[in-house]
Amino acid sequence: MAITREPTLTTADHLRRTLDGAWHDTKEKVRVDLNRDEFLPHYTPDLAEARAKTLEQMALLTAAGNAANGFRIEHGGTGNVGAAVTSIELLAMSDLSLMVKAGVQWGLFGGAVENLGTERHHTRYVKPTIDLDLLGCFAMTETGHGSDVQSLETTATYDPDAAEFVIHSPTPSARKDYIGGAAQHATMAAVFAQLLVPGTDGEETESKGVHCLLVPIRDEEGNDLPGVTTSDCGHKGGLPGVDNGRIVFDHVRVPRENLLNRYGDVDEDGNYTSPIDNVSRRFFTMLGTLVRGRITVGGSAAAAARVALTIATKYALQRRQFSSPEGDTEIAIMDYLAHQRRLLPLIAQAYALAFAQNELVSTLDRLQTSPDQDPQAQRELENRAAGLKVANTAFATRAIQECREACGGAGYLMENRLVALKADTDVFTTFEGDNTVLTQLVAKELLTGYADEVQGMSPVEWMRFAVDTVGDVVKKRTAATQIIQTLLDTRQDNEEEGSLFNRGTQLDMFGEREEYLLASAARRLQGAFKREDDPFDAFNFVQDHVLEAARAHIDRVVLEAFVAGIDECEDETAKELLGELCDIYALTVIEDNKAWFIEHRRLSVERAKAVTRGVNERCRSLRPHVDTIATGLGVPEYLLGAALLDGPGTDG
Amino acid sequence: MAITREPTLTTADHLRRTLDGAWHDTKEKVRVDLNRDEFLPHYTPDLAEARAKTLEQMALLTAAGNAANGFRIEHGGTGNVGAAVTSIELLAMSDLSLMVKAGVQWGLFGGAVENLGTERHHTRYVKPTIDLDLLGCFAMTETGHGSDVQSLETTATYDPDAAEFVIHSPTPSARKDYIGGAAQHATMAAVFAQLLVPGTDGEETESKGVHCLLVPIRDEEGNDLPGVTTSDCGHKGGLPGVDNGRIVFDHVRVPRENLLNRYGDVDEDGNYTSPIDNVSRRFFTMLGTLVRGRITVGGSAAAAARVALTIATKYALQRRQFSSPEGDTEIAIMDYLAHQRRLLPLIAQAYALAFAQNELVSTLDRLQTSPDQDPQAQRELENRAAGLKVANTAFATRAIQECREACGGAGYLMENRLVALKADTDVFTTFEGDNTVLTQLVAKELLTGYADEVQGMSPVEWMRFAVDTVGDVVKKRTAATQIIQTLLDTRQDNEEEGSLFNRGTQLDMFGEREEYLLASAARRLQGAFKREDDPFDAFNFVQDHVLEAARAHIDRVVLEAFVAGIDECEDETAKELLGELCDIYALTVIEDNKAWFIEHRRLSVERAKAVTRGVNERCRSLRPHVDTIATGLGVPEYLLGAALLDGPGTDG
Repeated sequence: MAITREPTLTTADHLRRTLDGAWHDTKEKVRVDLNRDEFLPHYTPDLAEARAKTLEQMALLTAAGNAANGFRIEHGGTGNVGAAVTSIELLAMSDLSLMVKAGVQWGLFGGAVENLGTERHHTRYVKPTIDLDLLGCFAMTETGHGSDVQSLETTATYDPDAAEFVIHSPTPSARKDYIGGAAQHATMAAVFAQLLVPGTDGEETESKGVHCLLVPIRDEEGNDLPGVTTSDCGHKGGLPGVDNGRIVFDHVRVPRENLLNRYGDVDEDGNYTSPIDNVSRRFFTMLGTLVRGRITVGGSAAAAARVALTIATKYALQRRQFSSPEGDTEIAIMDYLAHQRRLLPLIAQAYALAFAQNELVSTLDRLQTSPDQDPQAQRELENRAAGLKVANTAFATRAIQECREACGGAGYLMENRLVALKADTDVFTTFEGDNTVLTQLVAKELLTGYADEVQGMSPVEWMRFAVDTVGDVVKKRTAATQIIQTLLDTRQDNEEEGSLFNRGTQLDMFGEREEYLLASAARRLQGAFKREDDPFDAFNFVQDHVLEAARAHIDRVVLEAFVAGIDECEDETAKELLGELCDIYALTVIEDNKAWFIEHRRLSVERAKAVTRGVNERCRSLRPHVDTIATGLGVPEYLLGAALLDGPGTDG
Repeated sequence: MAITREPTLTTADHLRRTLDGAWHDTKEKVRVDLNRDEFLPHYTPDLAEARAKTLEQMALLTAAGNAANGFRIEHGGTGNVGAAVTSIELLAMSDLSLMVKAGVQWGLFGGAVENLGTERHHTRYVKPTIDLDLLGCFAMTETGHGSDVQSLETTATYDPDAAEFVIHSPTPSARKDYIGGAAQHATMAAVFAQLLVPGTDGEETESKGVHCLLVPIRDEEGNDLPGVTTSDCGHKGGLPGVDNGRIVFDHVRVPRENLLNRYGDVDEDGNYTSPIDNVSRRFFTMLGTLVRGRITVGGSAAAAARVALTIATKYALQRRQFSSPEGDTEIAIMDYLAHQRRLLPLIAQAYALAFAQNELVSTLDRLQTSPDQDPQAQRELENRAAGLKVANTAFATRAIQECREACGGAGYLMENRLVALKADTDVFTTFEGDNTVLTQLVAKELLTGYADEVQGMSPVEWMRFAVDTVGDVVKKRTAATQIIQTLLDTRQDNEEEGSLFNRGTQLDMFGEREEYLLASAARRLQGAFKREDDPFDAFNFVQDHVLEAARAHIDRVVLEAFVAGIDECEDETAKELLGELCDIYALTVIEDNKAWFIEHRRLSVERAKAVTRGVNERCRSLRPHVDTIATGLGVPEYLLGAALLDGPGTDG
């Protein structure tokens, strides 16, 4: 029997494996799938060319079997939810237009069919959606309504005589807007609209809230169908390969069966039935099944940031500027403390967020493949998804910008990719949920203890509600409870400098900040609503505090995930590096919030000064390992796509 | 006699006039010049189209007389230096490609001819440069050398037999890179190269340091001249109308007269003469005459940010989202505290920086039109220019990004302009001096008291130098000494909350922070260089502290300029608004550095909490005046170029 030995793994390999987490094999497969000419990073500002290229790439993904993961086996898929999310995430390393377009087709449109539809839809649409025989779009957002989806104006009125729904845009602000695929490729739209059925109490119609219907919008030749008017959003900040567009409906008729009727159905006579009575709960249950989109966007933004960080770090190791007094060679810019302070905290955060994202994907996979429903767990998943979407996308925007600037003039050339990464991911902070609105959502769930009633409430309303109900704010630990508890038990809360490197101390500081901010936000909410006559004034008085509490929550969740992630690492050298990166992550968050910690007596003035020293010290000790750490981010060399890494003097 | 009354000025008019400062008339003229179809904001990613458009616009500027300001009357210009800078700045509101291209032609190339050349160059080249009969480029940066200009590798070797210079790129890293105009339009380059003359001490050649020479690079048909190889940088993050390119020289010969010889000349036999003996001082004197470029870049970035802030603010006043519990109408997003906190501090900073820029331009104008040389004043001007270039461009990057996000999905569409403003200005933080390097330069001058010797030193070297020479760090007040002193004399340094709104208190806190950081940086420098064996380690130990000191200096300069600017305002209502904006500016800077103020006992823990409350309070009180304040930023409506301001439902 021949013995096949596993080739020796480098430290960077171990880092990559640990960072890949449970879906390591999926990620490795996608890396291999993407190692062909068609997926090498490219750029064209020509919309027609970019859009055609994206479609071509999608066909290759279908052929490689990556498109089927998001769908259940009985519908023609593989039922591997985690793989579906992670494989779309990884496309971000090749081309963000491809990632978005694939996300729209298989995640959003396909997800709506899969999760909001029933057998009649699955049989008819899932297979062609996987195979790209049917190109769909996801028509939720309207010109006048983005963050407040419950206020959508598009109507779907049931006509019992024809057994049809009439889809209509009653006002200019009801126009569907920014819809990926609507400008050119999509022939069918999953349209979110206010469902109107014949009234039972003398009214002509009665609203059942927002539902989703499948509406054909184009014929095979690409012409708008009667009553449908599409237009093109044209050039955007980035994502040239995504054909975003607008749709206006003028009394467009679709058969009754086109209602995705898992959570609400209309029979031939126009009688409405639903397994969920409460209009608001029904709507949010529907939205909840689509949480995958939000998770994918966060993960993809982080993946793009990892590409940028790898490029900027490798460049900083080769680029030299200004001579050293001790010799003839110029100094590598990675050797300057100022440069280390620019890049290393971001790399540490990239690791932190990747671990948090892995945890989130595992939870998603577990819940969506479990036969049992657990509404509380689902709400927590949605909350975590919102929080990490904010953290990942805000991080990507900041990190890619810093990387671009860290590469100077070279960073501004398209051939070095950073500007494209920045431009393409720029919309991620505001689509799939605006970051400010999502941060508020995180706070809402924490402050109202996931109360059912608040789901449909406006921000002012839920805060008013919270005043009466808020009790002990319960802090939910992440999966890693046991490790965290052990570390907390060994915390060193003393004045010695070294104590800031103690993991238990760091965890404790993050936890205390979250708890205090949540509790004090709750107290101030109560005071404000008692004091102010106008509820909006009361709301405004505490809005910034509430947002800060949510951010503190996310910070804590991410740190705990980092700690748990390190625990999974099987290589001692890699584990040590991860530990130092975790210090940098923890200490920079503390540094960013230093004033708070001092103000609230969690940090003495003397110890506060040691925080900055601690970050600098870790920058110094990690300096020899920077290349390893950057490689460990797991971006294959062929997906870097930056001419500057080919050395000076190379024409792109 | 007929009496012509000045039409009544609105508060916004008064704000604009005050903000325009001494060159109000110039700015009003340029606003009128730009009010024609050719200057309306436009976008095309097509490089050929964008480049052609920019040239066409430049011809219109020449015709309107705007190109002549940068040149002395005796050379065919108008000699209005302040007008030259401010008029190019204002182009940023129309099109940043135009601003950059105009800056290259009349500011950099023209400026090199004007300031480094002598009569033979003025007679021959100034007029055609103004009239665009000669298109030039400014070939300083090389692939391997951006921040460290003294290490440029391109050589200009004098050949006495032919009375010619031989221009040559000896290595791949000596290639001229990112040069605006080099890809297509420029027929002549102002080339910075190491000047080599025949050796006097047995060596074949002797270096005289970096000098500038005029080198023809293209013929009339656009073909590279013999020995010249140009190439195109292609697509960039933005600025599609600027044809950035690369130039490689292979022993290209130019007549001896092509040396711009004001600060260094070579006679026919190859003897070198210069009015400045010290090589380094000579080089920095040459660079110093070109300071205008850096000033223009800072001002233009700020102008672009004002456009973005106006768009985002006007949008926030019209965009409504989520209903109020008290009524049917949705709430304008400008009414949310979180949104006010996003935009108002940036608007306040826009005002602050505009006043600081006005002061800078006045100083430039005074020095460059004065018959006397004042080397100390010149050094201070260069330092101020570096500091405000950093402040303005970093601000623009952050502000435009925030504005984009504050407009949600609409902000991502090219038709709403914000993404173009972001993309176009993105390079401003790293060109005309990288911001980190410039911040270090500011610190260097402050810590070494503008010592002559340090000019050519590398960062490590000057810090080592500073150790021995640093004494009392002298804080230079801005022009407004008298006002500032009066305010300082009435400061209220008590625990009452209101004291934070006291201008004297604010000024005092900014001043104390700067002084302390500079003095402690000096102390730490001394300690580090005594302690560490390797000077680079010593340097690295304090680099972040030194950079922070420089930033504190810039903050103080900007606040003082704001205070002086308010004093110039002739309208009481406008003055009050400016006062509240100044509070927001001062308090947000204090808030950003709160930990420092607490750690250094300049702010008690209790008073620290009042800082945030103070910002929120001013947001509330300014809310009714937001439209006025935004209009006061002085961006003409026809230059906003954002379809979203035409209301929902409007196709762009």
